Amino acid sequence: MVNRHARLQPSYVPTKGGGAVRASKTLAAVSVALMMVTAACGRQDAGSPPGSQFPATWTVYGGNPEHNAVFDVPGDAQPWVRDGVSWQFREAMGLPLDGGPQDENVLGYLAASVKTTQMIGNAVGVTAVDGKIFAESDWNRAYALDAKTGKKLWETELMSEAMGNPVVADGLVFVGVGDTGFSFSNVQRYAAGGQVNRGMGYGAVSALDERTGKEVWHFSTVGEDMPSVVYLKGRIYFGNGDGHMYALDAKTGKPAWVTQVGGFDSMSSANYWHDPRTGRDLVVAGFSAPNYLYAFDAETGKVAWKATVPGVYNTGMGDNTPTVDSQRGLVFQDSVVDFDQATKTSDLALFGVDASSGKVTWETKLGRGPSPLAYKAAISMVRDGVVYVGNPATGFLTALDETSGRVLWRTDLGTYTWKGKEYHIQNRGGPVFYHGVLYQAAGAYVFAVDPASGRVLSRFDAGGRYGIVNPVIVGGTMYLGNSWGWVTATPMSKVHPGGG
Amino acid sequence: MVNRHARLQPSYVPTKGGGAVRASKTLAAVSVALMMVTAACGRQDAGSPPGSQFPATWTVYGGNPEHNAVFDVPGDAQPWVRDGVSWQFREAMGLPLDGGPQDENVLGYLAASVKTTQMIGNAVGVTAVDGKIFAESDWNRAYALDAKTGKKLWETELMSEAMGNPVVADGLVFVGVGDTGFSFSNVQRYAAGGQVNRGMGYGAVSALDERTGKEVWHFSTVGEDMPSVVYLKGRIYFGNGDGHMYALDAKTGKPAWVTQVGGFDSMSSANYWHDPRTGRDLVVAGFSAPNYLYAFDAETGKVAWKATVPGVYNTGMGDNTPTVDSQRGLVFQDSVVDFDQATKTSDLALFGVDASSGKVTWETKLGRGPSPLAYKAAISMVRDGVVYVGNPATGFLTALDETSGRVLWRTDLGTYTWKGKEYHIQNRGGPVFYHGVLYQAAGAYVFAVDPASGRVLSRFDAGGRYGIVNPVIVGGTMYLGNSWGWVTATPMSKVHPGGG
Repeated sequence: MVNRHARLQPSYVPTKGGGAVRASKTLAAVSVALMMVTAACGRQDAGSPPGSQFPATWTVYGGNPEHNAVFDVPGDAQPWVRDGVSWQFREAMGLPLDGGPQDENVLGYLAASVKTTQMIGNAVGVTAVDGKIFAESDWNRAYALDAKTGKKLWETELMSEAMGNPVVADGLVFVGVGDTGFSFSNVQRYAAGGQVNRGMGYGAVSALDERTGKEVWHFSTVGEDMPSVVYLKGRIYFGNGDGHMYALDAKTGKPAWVTQVGGFDSMSSANYWHDPRTGRDLVVAGFSAPNYLYAFDAETGKVAWKATVPGVYNTGMGDNTPTVDSQRGLVFQDSVVDFDQATKTSDLALFGVDASSGKVTWETKLGRGPSPLAYKAAISMVRDGVVYVGNPATGFLTALDETSGRVLWRTDLGTYTWKGKEYHIQNRGGPVFYHGVLYQAAGAYVFAVDPASGRVLSRFDAGGRYGIVNPVIVGGTMYLGNSWGWVTATPMSKVHPGGG
Repeated sequence: MVNRHARLQPSYVPTKGGGAVRASKTLAAVSVALMMVTAACGRQDAGSPPGSQFPATWTVYGGNPEHNAVFDVPGDAQPWVRDGVSWQFREAMGLPLDGGPQDENVLGYLAASVKTTQMIGNAVGVTAVDGKIFAESDWNRAYALDAKTGKKLWETELMSEAMGNPVVADGLVFVGVGDTGFSFSNVQRYAAGGQVNRGMGYGAVSALDERTGKEVWHFSTVGEDMPSVVYLKGRIYFGNGDGHMYALDAKTGKPAWVTQVGGFDSMSSANYWHDPRTGRDLVVAGFSAPNYLYAFDAETGKVAWKATVPGVYNTGMGDNTPTVDSQRGLVFQDSVVDFDQATKTSDLALFGVDASSGKVTWETKLGRGPSPLAYKAAISMVRDGVVYVGNPATGFLTALDETSGRVLWRTDLGTYTWKGKEYHIQNRGGPVFYHGVLYQAAGAYVFAVDPASGRVLSRFDAGGRYGIVNPVIVGGTMYLGNSWGWVTATPMSKVHPGGG
């Protein structure tokens, strides 16, 4: 299966602002060969083999540098892939979908929801590869599920919370573990003006066998490894809680280079950009305290550039995962800024960076509101010249022109009611674009939004709550992980009955 | 079985400076009744029933307020109890006993050992009740083992690390969970001079059914609940990471009172003292930042007194579990003091407090050495007018006169070699006194020490490493939990072949 991946990989070509599995000659040939095998075994439906219409690899957070995890399938795809499936998988320690978060009684709904996200559930979105859904849970687990049935293929216990989006390549699943804590010695060091290390528990990146979940290699670090890795040309890259950027050989876990930048990478998963002019690959990631977005030369680990904006506070730049428009060579990053102690409010600044030079070309403040607990940023998605981004301080979804930062529209996602009390929606996860409609998971809902006007078309109540989760759509199914410890599959016809 | 406990309980009378199970009339009568039952079932050895020569309750950290967890048995006790048993039980995630700590390669041996203690193994000693050994592991587990065979009776997964000494009473096992981390918001609050909350993950105290391990009630808190509880007259008491002292009804978990003192209780398990003059019960526990040893009126929760010494730093007073001489009305507490930034060294101050007034009657500095990682204090044990205490900064074991604090002797426990490098012994756990010999678990060893002179008589290499662990001796067996995630039973004849 490792070899099959290696052969299928080149056949998956992400399209601009999204992705599609192309039935290339290579893929078709392999598909036929596999059909013969599976037909002989008598275990499969008619048509192409399961998984062959899924992405063959998942190299970066959110499925592609643009963070539009949408994968269309050909019209002759298997019916379950095309029309969508419906299942719900409860992970270890998963809480009832119609109930509240753990420890709501002592923490209150909002803080308890954040803690449940960090300690029990799925902090970010899932991964769809090869007919399987891969998920990481903060109850120290990684899962592989059958994308058609939701049946568990394997479950692997890890050394600490797993908060990332699994990256799959070369027959391996790359997962990082770590936690958000600081030791008391670090508390005191920070007070004395020193640098701090994030992560009280174990920090490690592991490669698991895609078929079995067994650990193939384990790379331990001093700080947490909550951010997801990025896979590029046989290496994986990640920033982490001990203030380093790491490049490891994907097959062995051996370091190719390690670059110290200081501070800590909190939840900023690395992204990448190929510079067509120089042929150079850059990997980009944000770090906190000090707060910068860094670009590293993927080959050497040298810092190519670093960028920041004024007024960043708290974990700021190290929270958010940058978005890359691969075609136009632009990087989008956001950070909480301008904290006001009196009102406990903050703003969220989104800015565009020239991927080649690191120059900040524009900055737009998205709006002030109560400073969010824990993860304070919002993942953006770029498609066709427009950046879409939430703002957990205000619950607004905003569309901006990607070259100027000009706001095209701004939509209030409104409120939801829990136990008689009204809460503003907090939208940290990135929206995706599918058949002419934007979908954003926030609160207990998946919102369908008109990308031209920002008008909310519908909202689908799935129960539980979404943290920094982006929907993943393959064919006719939306796959989601949530904070309560569930992975769900829902037909698009149910998510947004009016949608395309 | 709950009723049986209630009946047996009064028959267990701890003796001064230790404990012994008295074969009282009540116990004998129940024993006969149980013998008939067990004989009818044909499952037991001849003689008195298993467990009947064990303590019937375990109400406080270390088995009694004096922290001498030694329980002699009558000469006609069952042979396995009298002569000792040998077994090793590997807990979930337990590491090989002859290997190093987790992540030694990136953290170094010492820091990796501390982390393994905090994240995987047993931070403190075990509990021996009713023929069973109860243990808490930092891999989120509580265990009940058969004291004779080491066979697992039950294993319960908990919500976070369990760092305490299980307290057993009324047919319930009381365990607290929590972790040592601080959020980044707390890091910043501390830097700004504010108060902090300790515990990133879940904090809770649970009552488990002694027979099944099933949770009977669950009391969640905002901060960590790493310290062990103390059981007294139908209530349990504990300090915790959100700076409160709690009194809960033992049967229901309902709060009787909650007193806020500020700061956080790190690992200071509560102890108690009954004032014969006033009839009042006091519970005592240490808190950090600000650093005080507090005494609370057990009935009302009012602060009876608070005490401190100059120069306390870091987690100081909230690390250590106070020791009480119940007869003489003295409390002994220690704390790291006088940190020197240039040499990164600290001293450990032990002081005596009048339990009635809270007046510090003496303070003795135990010696300066490299400031220990994580838990910085040492649990003391008092017996027959002498306080025995370690010092992780120097590896010295010291005996002091309990009324004056005068040093009677001081012994260097020496070094041990790991992978060709020499390390000084770090002794955080309390020693116990058994048949004329002191036993202290430290490093990978159990030291046998002459209590009159401090001379080291022997050291037994058990593998792994001991954190804040005191040995527990019942009849002829020493029971230990260790940092590598093991619970072991070793005959005293093997621990110290020359011993009584």
